[in-house]
Amino acid sequence: MKKGPITGKHGYQIDADIAFKDVIPANYDILVISGGRGPEKMRLNKDALEIVKYFFKENKPVVAICHGPQVLISAGVMKGRKATCWPGIRDDIIAAGALYEDKEVVIDGNLVSSRSPSDLYAFGREIISITKHL
Amino acid sequence: MKKGPITGKHGYQIDADIAFKDVIPANYDILVISGGRGPEKMRLNKDALEIVKYFFKENKPVVAICHGPQVLISAGVMKGRKATCWPGIRDDIIAAGALYEDKEVVIDGNLVSSRSPSDLYAFGREIISITKHL
Repeated sequence: MKKGPITGKHGYQIDADIAFKDVIPANYDILVISGGRGPEKMRLNKDALEIVKYFFKENKPVVAICHGPQVLISAGVMKGRKATCWPGIRDDIIAAGALYEDKEVVIDGNLVSSRSPSDLYAFGREIISITKHL
Repeated sequence: MKKGPITGKHGYQIDADIAFKDVIPANYDILVISGGRGPEKMRLNKDALEIVKYFFKENKPVVAICHGPQVLISAGVMKGRKATCWPGIRDDIIAAGALYEDKEVVIDGNLVSSRSPSDLYAFGREIISITKHL
């Protein structure tokens, strides 16, 4: 949410180089939403949701894994979209109007989604494929 | 899910005296769904969802706090019901058709819900009130 160091649940630290509120989405080619417990906080951040909405409006690539689609539900962009997610939030994306598929990676237009860390190879493969065409 | 000892995330251990599959819901007066990370597993258990559906069909008391309403979404019982929950799943109960209220405790017929551990006094007060009338 804020600029600066963030420590993940496994102790790894990364340095966020920009806060959501300062992001100009037009400057970015792809939006990657990872999983874990972050999405439940990110989805409550209006600036984060504006970034998501911009990417969908402009039909730019959005990739989400595990709990990542929680942010997509809050941004109101799941209706009628083929997608997958962590099994524990499956019924939430369905309630939000998504067409759930139990596959390692689901591609529907600008949206790429995966279920869990065990899908990371397939997920990564599709991200690489997208970035080749940017 | 199974009978036997369960250790919670803070290290407390309790002994589950019955598995979901062996529960005869007619033998119980109230269903209490707590929060944490359990509901994301419980909602994938068909026997647990049958218990929830029975309680709603029979209009018997169901109380849920924090992430507990995730189980109610999966049981398909949230539509048109006034409820609250952990802020991080607010947009999920809304997507499932609930009428979300940002209050320490929300009472709608047989359903009582609260947001977080800081609401436990209000939540407990309503549970006590219900049990007095059983």
